[in-house]
Amino acid sequence: MRTDRFAAFRETAGRQHDESANILEADRHGKVYIVGAGPGAADLLTVRGMHALRRADVVLYDALVNPDLLDEAPACALKIFVGKRSGLQMFEQREIDRRIVAEAREGKTVVRLKGGDPLLFGRGGEEALACEEAGIDFEFIPGVTSALGAASHAGIPLTHRGIASSVAFITARDGADSQEHLARLGRLAAAVDTLVIFMGGSRIPSLVESLLAAGVAKSARVAVISNATLENQTTVLGSVEDISDRLAEARLAAPMLIIVGEVTNLASTLNWFERRGYPAEESPVFGLVANRG
Amino acid sequence: MRTDRFAAFRETAGRQHDESANILEADRHGKVYIVGAGPGAADLLTVRGMHALRRADVVLYDALVNPDLLDEAPACALKIFVGKRSGLQMFEQREIDRRIVAEAREGKTVVRLKGGDPLLFGRGGEEALACEEAGIDFEFIPGVTSALGAASHAGIPLTHRGIASSVAFITARDGADSQEHLARLGRLAAAVDTLVIFMGGSRIPSLVESLLAAGVAKSARVAVISNATLENQTTVLGSVEDISDRLAEARLAAPMLIIVGEVTNLASTLNWFERRGYPAEESPVFGLVANRG
Repeated sequence: MRTDRFAAFRETAGRQHDESANILEADRHGKVYIVGAGPGAADLLTVRGMHALRRADVVLYDALVNPDLLDEAPACALKIFVGKRSGLQMFEQREIDRRIVAEAREGKTVVRLKGGDPLLFGRGGEEALACEEAGIDFEFIPGVTSALGAASHAGIPLTHRGIASSVAFITARDGADSQEHLARLGRLAAAVDTLVIFMGGSRIPSLVESLLAAGVAKSARVAVISNATLENQTTVLGSVEDISDRLAEARLAAPMLIIVGEVTNLASTLNWFERRGYPAEESPVFGLVANRG
Repeated sequence: MRTDRFAAFRETAGRQHDESANILEADRHGKVYIVGAGPGAADLLTVRGMHALRRADVVLYDALVNPDLLDEAPACALKIFVGKRSGLQMFEQREIDRRIVAEAREGKTVVRLKGGDPLLFGRGGEEALACEEAGIDFEFIPGVTSALGAASHAGIPLTHRGIASSVAFITARDGADSQEHLARLGRLAAAVDTLVIFMGGSRIPSLVESLLAAGVAKSARVAVISNATLENQTTVLGSVEDISDRLAEARLAAPMLIIVGEVTNLASTLNWFERRGYPAEESPVFGLVANRG
């Protein structure tokens, strides 16, 4: 049943691509789409992002992009991996910028596909500046940030009446080793109701220290969500005090997202996704399915 | 050309809906999808959100939902407006909760369609709790938050290397008249690199006061984006000191989003959307188009 619907979807995809090709015949000077692929599950890409992907000549993609999405690009499109492998950055940002510009200069439709949203810890601004400097047309196509993917699929409203009316996002990656960044993170935690920490999974012990140093209570609630929106999503709930131990037990894999705040208490009631107990591909709604890897 | 592609899209939509109906024959106990409609432009809905919408029996929608999206629901679906009109809330939240539950109890597929994302100033958590209490199945389908719609379409990365590595979201609506909320907003502004204020357009003067009281510099950069991602999007740039006067001149309409921080300087270089000078419906990529109202 799923296969039928998927086939129907593909058929239209092909048709749309042919038409796009006609439209573009008169307009062959290259363009770059900097696209948010969403939080993980393939069908959390936007409709506009899907359209751009289906007419791409070149797709440059990151490690966190769902591989199923690459199948949505034309079979003849060039697909270039520019993410990290085993934690090592394969390409420097400047190399990626150069490649984007070079492909567009050849008149190609370039899709730069990035996990989450391109303008929230996504470096999309840098790539757009590179296009701008080179006189290349670009567009941003926003995506569902992984923070909201995790929130929705772990059942944790980032704001909730009477509990949280502000939320902040920070990354543990850039400059995470510097005391200054950790101090800033602590101050932010103290000023906001809900704090979301991107890419912090492996740094939980030093993060916990910063939170405590900034006056966050030991009993403050924490959720860590691994592989948000994918079939293997796992949420671990705890407090600032015991989350390190709980994580060590659970042996979660990256990517991980940390949510600090009272709203995480709602997860035990609202976590519809992990408790539903059937694989994503059998969900009655979805034409596209979550990562089956 | 656009019309042809749109027709093709609709044709598939119809076919998919028929199939969904078959799938659901055996599974008629009602379900609620709490769906983020995205920031404004219809094609910034997710693929999954579109699928849910196309098989809805009932759609309950807010004022900020693009009317074009309602046409994507089946013609026979019941479409119920539950938003604000002329600033007045037509339904209390509890009435909305009750209606969602009542429709689902009749075995219907209910789509609760909300501007932006349902779990970021969207009250999706309250609606999910109402379902949970009533024993009704629900799912969250996340959306592109209006903050990222505005960021992408005004050319303002919320984070950018060397400029901003943290961002906070707060609303000016709930309790905005209380000094306590304004003080909290000020503290947050001081602790974060980029601050996004939802629904604050009409309260700029008191917001500016809170920012200054919290030690934010008069010269700090501010952007106000009206009707983000729609054809009539307008961005006004200024400083904390002069933004009130600039806004008074520009006579922007709600909905408005305020971004405070140095990243707003990038808008003059990266604002691809407002400068492109052709209406959204002639954009070469999009099958679905932005609000033409």
